[in-house]
Amino acid sequence: MVNVGIIGLGYWGPNLLRNLYTNSRCGRIVMCDSDPARAERMRSRYPDLYCTPDCGEVFGDDGLDAVVVATGVSSHYPLARRALEAGKHVFVEKPFAASVVEAEELVELGRRLKLVTMVGHTFMFSPPVIKTKEIIDSGELGEIYFITASRVNLGLHQKDVSVIWDLAPHDFSMLFYWLGEEPSSVSAFGHAYVLEGIPDVAFINLAFPSGSTGNVQVAWLAPSKLRRTVIVGSSKMLVYDDTEPIEKVKIYDKGVEVIEPETFGEYQLTYRTGDILSPKLSTDEPLAAEMEEFLASIEEGRKPRSSGEEGLSVVRALEMAERSLRNTTF
Amino acid sequence: MVNVGIIGLGYWGPNLLRNLYTNSRCGRIVMCDSDPARAERMRSRYPDLYCTPDCGEVFGDDGLDAVVVATGVSSHYPLARRALEAGKHVFVEKPFAASVVEAEELVELGRRLKLVTMVGHTFMFSPPVIKTKEIIDSGELGEIYFITASRVNLGLHQKDVSVIWDLAPHDFSMLFYWLGEEPSSVSAFGHAYVLEGIPDVAFINLAFPSGSTGNVQVAWLAPSKLRRTVIVGSSKMLVYDDTEPIEKVKIYDKGVEVIEPETFGEYQLTYRTGDILSPKLSTDEPLAAEMEEFLASIEEGRKPRSSGEEGLSVVRALEMAERSLRNTTF
Amino acid sequence: MVNVGIIGLGYWGPNLLRNLYTNSRCGRIVMCDSDPARAERMRSRYPDLYCTPDCGEVFGDDGLDAVVVATGVSSHYPLARRALEAGKHVFVEKPFAASVVEAEELVELGRRLKLVTMVGHTFMFSPPVIKTKEIIDSGELGEIYFITASRVNLGLHQKDVSVIWDLAPHDFSMLFYWLGEEPSSVSAFGHAYVLEGIPDVAFINLAFPSGSTGNVQVAWLAPSKLRRTVIVGSSKMLVYDDTEPIEKVKIYDKGVEVIEPETFGEYQLTYRTGDILSPKLSTDEPLAAEMEEFLASIEEGRKPRSSGEEGLSVVRALEMAERSLRNTTF
Amino acid sequence: MVNVGIIGLGYWGPNLLRNLYTNSRCGRIVMCDSDPARAERMRSRYPDLYCTPDCGEVFGDDGLDAVVVATGVSSHYPLARRALEAGKHVFVEKPFAASVVEAEELVELGRRLKLVTMVGHTFMFSPPVIKTKEIIDSGELGEIYFITASRVNLGLHQKDVSVIWDLAPHDFSMLFYWLGEEPSSVSAFGHAYVLEGIPDVAFINLAFPSGSTGNVQVAWLAPSKLRRTVIVGSSKMLVYDDTEPIEKVKIYDKGVEVIEPETFGEYQLTYRTGDILSPKLSTDEPLAAEMEEFLASIEEGRKPRSSGEEGLSVVRALEMAERSLRNTTF
Repeated sequence: MVNVGIIGLGYWGPNLLRNLYTNSRCGRIVMCDSDPARAERMRSRYPDLYCTPDCGEVFGDDGLDAVVVATGVSSHYPLARRALEAGKHVFVEKPFAASVVEAEELVELGRRLKLVTMVGHTFMFSPPVIKTKEIIDSGELGEIYFITASRVNLGLHQKDVSVIWDLAPHDFSMLFYWLGEEPSSVSAFGHAYVLEGIPDVAFINLAFPSGSTGNVQVAWLAPSKLRRTVIVGSSKMLVYDDTEPIEKVKIYDKGVEVIEPETFGEYQLTYRTGDILSPKLSTDEPLAAEMEEFLASIEEGRKPRSSGEEGLSVVRALEMAERSLRNTTF
Repeated sequence: MVNVGIIGLGYWGPNLLRNLYTNSRCGRIVMCDSDPARAERMRSRYPDLYCTPDCGEVFGDDGLDAVVVATGVSSHYPLARRALEAGKHVFVEKPFAASVVEAEELVELGRRLKLVTMVGHTFMFSPPVIKTKEIIDSGELGEIYFITASRVNLGLHQKDVSVIWDLAPHDFSMLFYWLGEEPSSVSAFGHAYVLEGIPDVAFINLAFPSGSTGNVQVAWLAPSKLRRTVIVGSSKMLVYDDTEPIEKVKIYDKGVEVIEPETFGEYQLTYRTGDILSPKLSTDEPLAAEMEEFLASIEEGRKPRSSGEEGLSVVRALEMAERSLRNTTF
Repeated sequence: MVNVGIIGLGYWGPNLLRNLYTNSRCGRIVMCDSDPARAERMRSRYPDLYCTPDCGEVFGDDGLDAVVVATGVSSHYPLARRALEAGKHVFVEKPFAASVVEAEELVELGRRLKLVTMVGHTFMFSPPVIKTKEIIDSGELGEIYFITASRVNLGLHQKDVSVIWDLAPHDFSMLFYWLGEEPSSVSAFGHAYVLEGIPDVAFINLAFPSGSTGNVQVAWLAPSKLRRTVIVGSSKMLVYDDTEPIEKVKIYDKGVEVIEPETFGEYQLTYRTGDILSPKLSTDEPLAAEMEEFLASIEEGRKPRSSGEEGLSVVRALEMAERSLRNTTF
Repeated sequence: MVNVGIIGLGYWGPNLLRNLYTNSRCGRIVMCDSDPARAERMRSRYPDLYCTPDCGEVFGDDGLDAVVVATGVSSHYPLARRALEAGKHVFVEKPFAASVVEAEELVELGRRLKLVTMVGHTFMFSPPVIKTKEIIDSGELGEIYFITASRVNLGLHQKDVSVIWDLAPHDFSMLFYWLGEEPSSVSAFGHAYVLEGIPDVAFINLAFPSGSTGNVQVAWLAPSKLRRTVIVGSSKMLVYDDTEPIEKVKIYDKGVEVIEPETFGEYQLTYRTGDILSPKLSTDEPLAAEMEEFLASIEEGRKPRSSGEEGLSVVRALEMAERSLRNTTF
């Protein structure tokens, strides 16, 4: 059993809490938020759990084995560092930290103290993403040529970070997980339409050591979500559309050679060359799997999926993209 | 009535020919191809039309008012130039020419000789593209923030030009038509996976004087076509998916503010904020409309839609993209 | 505040309980289930609620104003009757009762004792169904010609009742709600494929006094859900597909006259005649709205949507369909 | 080489003619239509073909081996009979004849005179229908439990026959072809909304000797086409949606047992239990394949797919459905 302190009960923290609460590996839970309203809401939902406004109490509680940090990105580093220095395993929401320097220090600290560091890249625990990883690793797609990802979101969620820091962590964590590598170069192009100085649209190019390339589109401004990832390999293509209810993942087989169509109508009507398979996906809850992985990696003394190293890779790519964006945006 | 010579009876020429043949503005037609097999095939299909292997015969035929050039891109410039110099209006397949220098010279020549120059950007005559233009011009979408376009094609069609010269003319012509401007800067990133030196994947960024940005993905390597264009404006979003049979164009209205979802499930399920409208499209044949526009612009002595100027804009952007691609591709 | 006893904590009861628990109109809740395992599960989820294995305790508790019955259909009548006779408002899961005689008696009893009777036809509280009702009532579809409904479900859920009693209550309650009438005649045709004597597929025809007709397909045997309702009116058509994530409801406008297509290809490609609109739907939770309606109708002393009368109409149609099925099934 | 006379150059005839004209098995063609405008149109399209207004000339032409009848249903029988009596093989558009008596006589006549009789059930030559037949025959779906078919068409096409005679031939021919049997009982229910006495909506139940059941919905009144066929077998389900551009046929695998969902949300989100496969379809033109089959069966002296027998089965079912409809329609 792992005893856990959770800091930050705002938007995402309660979701993590709910999944810790029902996980049988989880023992005692201490909740922490300096905002009285949030604390009160959670106290009434979990009357059996203790809640403190002071995170120092969490770090000083010798009975706690681990800390979950679900606050804003700027406090990830100081809180995670204090947790590690207090000898506690740490789970930090994505993005891992506000800079590569911070993220590197946390990884290094965890490694030195032999403590688990894990980052909340939830999509790495989502059934379509896991299935896609299995398919890629099986070699079914062949050599991976390129991956494109669209993440066009509703409304405007952030006022202090660019759309890259807000949305690209999702796609970066998926791409790096699938390819098993981080990019050798990242460049970005975008624009700030609504708030000056806060880019709300960005197109990001990635080159990977293996030769694969990527193009990630992130934007906030749409009235309807678009979330489509296309992976083109030398043998097959895989499309993962997270807005599809029934067929989130489709694998397109290559068929025989295409014959040149003779009319514009035929040209328009020749859509594909082989079978299309949509594999059955598990219905596991990603957040439950994520919390399970955190607790299991502590109990088993092993590195978790979505470890601090993966979190660092994502932060490194975010920093490269952001720097490029600042240079090329007009 | 316009008398027309058509040069090039390979892949696309017969489609143009068929639409000329049934157009009531079209008078006498002379066919021309140096390949005996192609010539023979068209002769048997149109026993009433004269066919010559020698294009000089077309240029020298004083009864012909116009010439349609449907050959490979490398011969566009010399053939179109001879046609114009022979005093004939000219229609050239896309892309207009193999370089900006060539395209500029053709436009200049047409202007000086008061002859129509037109380029076969067929999508500019396709009902969903025209409807999208109307919607943008009506102001319904508001200020256009950004446009993304995916054109992922089956198989490998070309051995001598990059995927940019093969596929981007379609998207460039649509984007410039919709926005009514050509880009101030174009950059591209891509890779050659199958044939060394022939990029088969490219991601192209475009910045327009008005402030709009664009991201165009073109690739050859897929087992199924993807053709989706997303236009995000300050008021509404439009999605044009050419592989959709019934709802090719959809307009997404902006609704009220989004409330932050409280669970991962809710987060996943909140897809959109307003109504979605899919307007009825005309069922006109794009190629018929294109040939009609060519013949009508000659008879009415006016500039056609998709004129030489538009063709030049596309070639200019292709050249910028190709140059950028050569610099950044690894 | 309404104090509520809830009997039956099996499959559906806990969902109702959860929504009662968080409804501010709901006061004290008493839980009841004779199965110790179920009782224990709910006790640990709601440690503050009292749970009894004896439903007599619920009926005898003078502090309780209302009873929710979420047991199997065979016990609906005896439990609801005892609740009413004990002076308590009653909410009964669908179908209301096992026969018309039973349902009539419950309606009559509620009317005489001036107590609310309500039936859990949840779809009548689901946003797409409510939006469809609004659209029909607005006259936008014109005169309603016919409605078809497909409800093809996974696996085999029931061993004691036919697919009609299991699935048709959903569609019947929607159709009668939309049309504001119950059918004058109902006939059914079906077959028992898996368990002898338990029909698992049925096709039901309905004729309504207004002249509208209906065709409802219900089946258990499919590996994927199908749920599509088509409403064809004299002016427009509405399609409601509950498996669609983003566009559950679509309204198809009638356009101009169709021109006879000239080729088989054209024939296949002419899909529609007018605009298609998918209205934005509320994201309200149907079960929360249902429990709110039950409690509000008690507090406001009024008839609820989905009252005993509606429940009776559904049971009447079920009985007619079942009788017809028994006669025609081979 | 087969020499063919074609009678009827109205709506469908020109499509057959075009495919005869390009078929290498087809020799001389004689066209026939008593309407001068139609005759003139075809004469100008095929200046090399002879056209007569007098069908007697076709029957009396000893050089003709076969006759294609593409007129209205009421003249199918007299024309086909004269053709057979003149010793010519005959292809008749669907439905084969206006009554079972007529159809039986034609089949009998063809059999006695050893002449091919074939009926234009074009869908039996369409790639998705053929692929479905292959899948059923392979046993992949298991025992076929039931088939539902929706054919909701635009506008109002006919003024003299009910929607059953107009649309049901398509679905009947497909169902009987797939199952390899004709129904033992057929009943129908419907209504005439627009023109009194001409039913424009009908729901048809079919029972087959093997135990399979069917439900066919046909209607004219919709602003958008719906064409979906669902085949549920003991092992898998197949959905064939003819309005889908890319995935017309999908096979749904059965997976493991479904776990009862615990919340309404989960209930809504559990869509399917196994993989979904959409097989690649051929892009053959159905009408070309149909004409090829007619000519080949003549040359090879064998029974064609979609022979007179199949046409008779369809007419028999149409007559049963129509009779039932007249009895039950209100």
